[in-house]
Amino acid sequence: MTEKRKYKLNCSDRAEFHNNAAYCIGTGRMNLALRHEYHKQLKKVQEDIGFSHIRGHGLFCDDMAVYHTYMEEGEEKTEYNFTYIDLVFDDYRALGLKPFVELGFMPEKLASGNQTVFYWKGNVTPPKDYGKWAELVSAVIGHWIERYGREEVAAWPFEVWNEPNLPGFWKDADEKEYFKLYEVTSRAVKSCDSRIRVGGPAICGVDDERWLRSFLQFCTVNQVPLDFVTRHAYGTEAPEKDGHYQYQRLRTPEAFMEELRTSRSIIDSFKEYKGMEMHITEFNTSYTPLNPIHDTNLNAAYVARLLSEMGDICASYSYWTFGDVFEEEGVSFTPFSGCFGLLANGGIPKPTYWSFVFFKKLSDFAIFKNEYAVITKDGKGGIRGVCWNIAEEQGDFALTLEFSAELENGSYAVVQKLVDEETCNPLKAWVDMGTPANPSGEELEVIKECALPRVKTRRLEVTEGRADIEIKLSSNGVCYFEITPIYPKADRGFRVELIRGAR
Amino acid sequence: MTEKRKYKLNCSDRAEFHNNAAYCIGTGRMNLALRHEYHKQLKKVQEDIGFSHIRGHGLFCDDMAVYHTYMEEGEEKTEYNFTYIDLVFDDYRALGLKPFVELGFMPEKLASGNQTVFYWKGNVTPPKDYGKWAELVSAVIGHWIERYGREEVAAWPFEVWNEPNLPGFWKDADEKEYFKLYEVTSRAVKSCDSRIRVGGPAICGVDDERWLRSFLQFCTVNQVPLDFVTRHAYGTEAPEKDGHYQYQRLRTPEAFMEELRTSRSIIDSFKEYKGMEMHITEFNTSYTPLNPIHDTNLNAAYVARLLSEMGDICASYSYWTFGDVFEEEGVSFTPFSGCFGLLANGGIPKPTYWSFVFFKKLSDFAIFKNEYAVITKDGKGGIRGVCWNIAEEQGDFALTLEFSAELENGSYAVVQKLVDEETCNPLKAWVDMGTPANPSGEELEVIKECALPRVKTRRLEVTEGRADIEIKLSSNGVCYFEITPIYPKADRGFRVELIRGAR
Amino acid sequence: MTEKRKYKLNCSDRAEFHNNAAYCIGTGRMNLALRHEYHKQLKKVQEDIGFSHIRGHGLFCDDMAVYHTYMEEGEEKTEYNFTYIDLVFDDYRALGLKPFVELGFMPEKLASGNQTVFYWKGNVTPPKDYGKWAELVSAVIGHWIERYGREEVAAWPFEVWNEPNLPGFWKDADEKEYFKLYEVTSRAVKSCDSRIRVGGPAICGVDDERWLRSFLQFCTVNQVPLDFVTRHAYGTEAPEKDGHYQYQRLRTPEAFMEELRTSRSIIDSFKEYKGMEMHITEFNTSYTPLNPIHDTNLNAAYVARLLSEMGDICASYSYWTFGDVFEEEGVSFTPFSGCFGLLANGGIPKPTYWSFVFFKKLSDFAIFKNEYAVITKDGKGGIRGVCWNIAEEQGDFALTLEFSAELENGSYAVVQKLVDEETCNPLKAWVDMGTPANPSGEELEVIKECALPRVKTRRLEVTEGRADIEIKLSSNGVCYFEITPIYPKADRGFRVELIRGAR
Amino acid sequence: MTEKRKYKLNCSDRAEFHNNAAYCIGTGRMNLALRHEYHKQLKKVQEDIGFSHIRGHGLFCDDMAVYHTYMEEGEEKTEYNFTYIDLVFDDYRALGLKPFVELGFMPEKLASGNQTVFYWKGNVTPPKDYGKWAELVSAVIGHWIERYGREEVAAWPFEVWNEPNLPGFWKDADEKEYFKLYEVTSRAVKSCDSRIRVGGPAICGVDDERWLRSFLQFCTVNQVPLDFVTRHAYGTEAPEKDGHYQYQRLRTPEAFMEELRTSRSIIDSFKEYKGMEMHITEFNTSYTPLNPIHDTNLNAAYVARLLSEMGDICASYSYWTFGDVFEEEGVSFTPFSGCFGLLANGGIPKPTYWSFVFFKKLSDFAIFKNEYAVITKDGKGGIRGVCWNIAEEQGDFALTLEFSAELENGSYAVVQKLVDEETCNPLKAWVDMGTPANPSGEELEVIKECALPRVKTRRLEVTEGRADIEIKLSSNGVCYFEITPIYPKADRGFRVELIRGAR
Repeated sequence: MTEKRKYKLNCSDRAEFHNNAAYCIGTGRMNLALRHEYHKQLKKVQEDIGFSHIRGHGLFCDDMAVYHTYMEEGEEKTEYNFTYIDLVFDDYRALGLKPFVELGFMPEKLASGNQTVFYWKGNVTPPKDYGKWAELVSAVIGHWIERYGREEVAAWPFEVWNEPNLPGFWKDADEKEYFKLYEVTSRAVKSCDSRIRVGGPAICGVDDERWLRSFLQFCTVNQVPLDFVTRHAYGTEAPEKDGHYQYQRLRTPEAFMEELRTSRSIIDSFKEYKGMEMHITEFNTSYTPLNPIHDTNLNAAYVARLLSEMGDICASYSYWTFGDVFEEEGVSFTPFSGCFGLLANGGIPKPTYWSFVFFKKLSDFAIFKNEYAVITKDGKGGIRGVCWNIAEEQGDFALTLEFSAELENGSYAVVQKLVDEETCNPLKAWVDMGTPANPSGEELEVIKECALPRVKTRRLEVTEGRADIEIKLSSNGVCYFEITPIYPKADRGFRVELIRGAR
Repeated sequence: MTEKRKYKLNCSDRAEFHNNAAYCIGTGRMNLALRHEYHKQLKKVQEDIGFSHIRGHGLFCDDMAVYHTYMEEGEEKTEYNFTYIDLVFDDYRALGLKPFVELGFMPEKLASGNQTVFYWKGNVTPPKDYGKWAELVSAVIGHWIERYGREEVAAWPFEVWNEPNLPGFWKDADEKEYFKLYEVTSRAVKSCDSRIRVGGPAICGVDDERWLRSFLQFCTVNQVPLDFVTRHAYGTEAPEKDGHYQYQRLRTPEAFMEELRTSRSIIDSFKEYKGMEMHITEFNTSYTPLNPIHDTNLNAAYVARLLSEMGDICASYSYWTFGDVFEEEGVSFTPFSGCFGLLANGGIPKPTYWSFVFFKKLSDFAIFKNEYAVITKDGKGGIRGVCWNIAEEQGDFALTLEFSAELENGSYAVVQKLVDEETCNPLKAWVDMGTPANPSGEELEVIKECALPRVKTRRLEVTEGRADIEIKLSSNGVCYFEITPIYPKADRGFRVELIRGAR
Repeated sequence: MTEKRKYKLNCSDRAEFHNNAAYCIGTGRMNLALRHEYHKQLKKVQEDIGFSHIRGHGLFCDDMAVYHTYMEEGEEKTEYNFTYIDLVFDDYRALGLKPFVELGFMPEKLASGNQTVFYWKGNVTPPKDYGKWAELVSAVIGHWIERYGREEVAAWPFEVWNEPNLPGFWKDADEKEYFKLYEVTSRAVKSCDSRIRVGGPAICGVDDERWLRSFLQFCTVNQVPLDFVTRHAYGTEAPEKDGHYQYQRLRTPEAFMEELRTSRSIIDSFKEYKGMEMHITEFNTSYTPLNPIHDTNLNAAYVARLLSEMGDICASYSYWTFGDVFEEEGVSFTPFSGCFGLLANGGIPKPTYWSFVFFKKLSDFAIFKNEYAVITKDGKGGIRGVCWNIAEEQGDFALTLEFSAELENGSYAVVQKLVDEETCNPLKAWVDMGTPANPSGEELEVIKECALPRVKTRRLEVTEGRADIEIKLSSNGVCYFEITPIYPKADRGFRVELIRGAR
Repeated sequence: MTEKRKYKLNCSDRAEFHNNAAYCIGTGRMNLALRHEYHKQLKKVQEDIGFSHIRGHGLFCDDMAVYHTYMEEGEEKTEYNFTYIDLVFDDYRALGLKPFVELGFMPEKLASGNQTVFYWKGNVTPPKDYGKWAELVSAVIGHWIERYGREEVAAWPFEVWNEPNLPGFWKDADEKEYFKLYEVTSRAVKSCDSRIRVGGPAICGVDDERWLRSFLQFCTVNQVPLDFVTRHAYGTEAPEKDGHYQYQRLRTPEAFMEELRTSRSIIDSFKEYKGMEMHITEFNTSYTPLNPIHDTNLNAAYVARLLSEMGDICASYSYWTFGDVFEEEGVSFTPFSGCFGLLANGGIPKPTYWSFVFFKKLSDFAIFKNEYAVITKDGKGGIRGVCWNIAEEQGDFALTLEFSAELENGSYAVVQKLVDEETCNPLKAWVDMGTPANPSGEELEVIKECALPRVKTRRLEVTEGRADIEIKLSSNGVCYFEITPIYPKADRGFRVELIRGAR
């Protein structure tokens, strides 16, 4: 099935579009940031995309070894160990990243219980001593100020805990207890430097409306510091499980966005918080790292659409996560394992990786946006756009977009980069090779070669102030295109018509 | 126009094929080996292809600063400077390359005249003092023996001068003088270590039959050391010039090979030299570094065919050259300039680069070879082949090859890597962008993205001892394919049928 | 106090010396090999020293995620995950290392109890099912054979468990149970390939004589495969504890060696095992990673002496460990923390690092060895030696060694590299800077500058077949020296007497 | 002989000191910037020192291949080739350097004569067509504006030609002709962007007073653009030659400075130019690249003194040159060859390298300066200084400087880095090894180990507001020291008194 749609683009048009795609990216827990493979993947991500911030769990977990106690003269004393924290944060800085600091989970020695989350056993119980917790928060921030300078740290956003509205992440999903934690923590943060921005409640989409309202209520009533609101957003229904995997159906992008709009209006309904920044500190299609959808072209197309719209109401939206060095559900048996990352292990870019690469090339100045495309000016007389064709159901569905674009007369280079199930589908390549659990170096090389966009160029001569551009998208295709003014000048004697294949 | 051809492949078939594609590669003059861009290009070539030897001009030219004289007590004394020679040869060794040493041209201080060749002015006159020339040769070889060890240097092949049958490369193309040079030089080489292999006459295809005969005659009559014969081979007619460029018509591959066969039979006609190794120390389509053909897909297809056949009669064949850091006709104004390299400046692989990458993956054990393809066993129950479709004339010409291959029953992964005018044509990409003389970093990135093969995979199930493989080649396409036995084993719960786009 | 000793060296002398210093090196547990800092440290070690093998704990610990079970149709099934194992062993191979495989500890799912060792909780109980254990061993070896080739894996040595004679490492230090484990494991290893060499009992110096005897008795009686014997050796007494640290007194080198000689003679007392290889799979001064002695020059001098003697009776001796990425007693609070490594965290070489660098430069052909020095021929007419001055007690103790060396007449370059408490003492530099727990980049730079040997050169002219060499060692100094024949030839006009400071 | 001098340092003291040591550095001709060894050396220099600008000869020389002509329809046309210029300037930018552009020498096709300078034959004759010269200048600047942006290029300083007061560098040292060149060129520069700063006359110390006066006269009378004045400064007398080398006597630093002060007062004598920036676009001890003084510690000490004083009257002073990839007098036969560089070939830092490293660590806020030392505040309560002991004559001359420094009570870390003839003298190491023309990798390694400062640390406790610091300098020593406040805090249980050698 093929559908064809035509649109007219005018230079003076202006469409709503806020390109915050590269503001923040998610990561596996802090301790994994000590890994060599993690470092290589994050380095590649930063070279190709270049995010500004990074956020992940586990800053205070025991494998980061921050919080310690010992007995001295019959008294329990506290000592802090910043060895691993420094390794991680030094590396982030070297890679051009600021942290979007998530304060959690609970060091065992400070925990009131022993409930944990994940394979890596993050303790999710409240502190047994809120004073010591506040001291811990202050000590860590104080250490950062000493190490990186006050101005630097004052520019980092801080978030309190993760998804306290789920009993798995916060004992009993106890609202009151979280509000207490939030208050103590946010005041501790501000005590280090009043310019540091702090927010919460970091909830996911379960009972979220009620939580958000009572959280904001609590903050305003108690004059608790709040500089921004955070929440998470995922686009799938409940999973069906099989062996190591979980399969789910996607919600529509409209339903996904609607949930965020509801949050937005709850915030705006408080006069103190009207217009306050809302940060989506996690988003993705599925919320489980065992769903192969993350490895597909469908995911890339779905995320492209989200990237075009989320900025309308969110200050940022942090894709969960940059890579597959991740252990929430244990260690993957295979390079493609349905994990969240933009990169599969071995450093293979998944299709969704390119959605971010492509959005990074767009400006904020959009002249067109709809459910299939966003097109922005390049500031030099040309345009750049991203198009997508979400096709969840099996079966081919081809979409052709035709744009009649207003352009100054002259020469242009058209570059198209196409990512679809045929051209850039490393998951399929791996399946074709027999889904090897431990591919050889040679096999990995082929899979990576199948993970690159197909790039095409052509020359465009505009003579009457307008040009037709046709973008063909097969199922779940994502296409970046740019139309850039050029001033061709052939080298003396270079006669293209004499050269076989040059045109 | 499309042509379809069908072939049957049997495991027990054996076709003649000697895969010496990676034995030797040509290079711009020695002094250019000091360049940073040269080093980067050669490093890439070695990582992706991995040649064994390298050969180029200019070892003794003044910009290598080897030979010096000074006056002392009224007498002229000689001194040698190995500073640059060491930089160059140390780097070659670090990159896994042995030199195929070309002894030439003439240091100014040792020259009998002032005739030079090329923009970089290599002196092409005989030595004014053959004794000093012999000393120079011995001194340099002696220095290498000291630096790299006797065993190492004893394994390097040495060639005397370059194309003495052209008056441009050797004053008056004086045959007698060259024979003298050859005799003096080869004896000087042997005096350093009798195991070092030396050869000549390094002629190109002008009056070559006569030259070769009298050279061999000379050697045999005078008992002059000769371990192998060398010559050059180019596949084009005389050029038409325009500005910085030269355009030529290709000779047929058959004509190209015929010329070599004639040399072969001349050698074999000498009973002392029958079966002696013949090394093609330079080959390419055009012999001018100003012909854009080198940058085309046509060149890749033509060279693929040559690589399949040259080993039948030649011990090696050294493509002239690995990269475009080259100044024989001056400094290129543009990244694509018709120069000889496998890589264009900026590190862009040209289509012919991939012909070498592909042949490097073939074994010596061929089961099929004809004018379109060579197919070899992989030693593990699978096969690997390279196919090509030379289409010099403008206009599309599609070729479909169908192989019915005998294979053990079981599962196979099929990988195809395609290079043709549509899929991997950086020259066209650069033309589309307006032939920028000095592309920006961003433009260069796009051109490189257009310089990669299109890689496809599929799964193949063989159930009746035979499988059909179809290779479609558009004009000037070169295709590598491999069919590798696999033993698929899905991870527990990985249900490919549930994953959109995985098959 | 200064002591002066004189020795005569003759070319024809031959002293016993087996230079196996670089055969094997210890490492923190396998999971730590996934770390970025670990990789950087090991890379540096391999560049500067270049060990052949590496050995560490924790191959089967849960953080390597190898062994898994799941229920299917009411039955417990096993599945293996090689993801992390491959990352680790691929990296070792890329760094030029073969594993000296230690088989242990116990995966939780396979364990008969829950007793653990170390901060990182290695399970030290016997398997609850020896059949499944044998399958695990075979599965892992089988996987390696598939990945790296049978020839490669057949060359790796395997050791069964670690220090079973300590109840902390093996439940109840149960001898019979260990022998059972050894038998099952060694047979499983041999079932993969009979050429693979396997050994034990990997004991430390507690009740070691009895253990070794009964182990060998067990093997010979039961015809259990045994290709070599392994044990550990440490040079300190019981510790005094304070806060994060432990302090101990050194045993004499003689006592250290005596313990090994006893093991040697026990082995030799079995006629089947007489002369069998004994590998010291761990050695160091102190056996606790909390003893600052590891960071001192004393350690370097003491180890230098051990390196000169251990080869007399041991096939290898693996220093425990290459670096301080190590968590047996938790995460270090500071860069110098008394941990075992040759490198402190941050990549700072400790003095002992240089003892290994120096011994790597020696040949096996010794002309002199005593309690202060070992001197070997360099094969080119010169000599190379290492000297040391162990001075445990506080207070300066200077040692001057004077060698009268027989040398051919001619010119020599003398190079001395000195590591002592004054010249190369990064621990002191760090103390001088205030023992910063988290040094800044600048501070780290200074500490590294204080971690390099002081290198001195001089010219030596031998005119009467003999030269005097004086080596001055302050307390705990280690000195490498080489005397290399040279053939000086000054550049034309280079008049050293005119150049201020050149001599 | 030893001399001892005592000084009192007070926090409120202020000495004149302008630390412009890292503003600009000299380089071998532009074409050499294409070299791999050049790139490696410059990269190291930028990592360790980090200059802001770079200046060298040969932008328009034929080996940069910029200027070309061809005949078309009977007319000579011009074409420009920016291939090499882009390679060089892209690399500079990647290394953090802006060019201090020297406009020269003359392309052969544009030259009025054939007089050349140097081994590499730079044409030093006036343009045969000033219009075409102006076009060339504008074309190159225009190209840079297009490639790097107008703002960027507007910040680059431009200088017209090099040492026109020497007949070797400018035909007949023709003043009038130079003024014409200067006028045409400076106007061409300003025509590209009026913000670009341009200066001259780039003279050396021959007839310089007269030249400078008439140049300024010319500019002011003719209203010729002039943004700054440039000249060169060298500290040696006429050379004595021998073979490849030249030996000279040093002038006193006072004489060196006096010459610059004279220039300064000539400039200031013009009311239009009073206070105008004077840039020393080249300085060094000797002006010949064949004088071994450049490789000595004497050079390091002499230059240290110059670096302390030149900023008093000069806006910048560009050491000639960063490295020894240099061909003015041909290709060096040996790694140490008396060439200008901070680094010898092979990447060996010469003693003078460290003078720059040390000055880079000083601030502009000096509290003490005399003929032996300069000491600055570090902004954090500590001080940093550089001391030197120039001892030209043979024979040891030891200097001890004692400073009584006012410091807040508390703990300090003292770091000293010493470079002198004993501790950091790679030239001597190379001599000791027999002055090998082509050192092996191993030899080079030892030489580099002998090219590092000796670094010492100690702890300083200030209890009465003042501390004594003693700096001992042997002949030609240069010493950097820093006294930095620290807040020592030992790890729990770390008892330094128990650790052998830690204090």
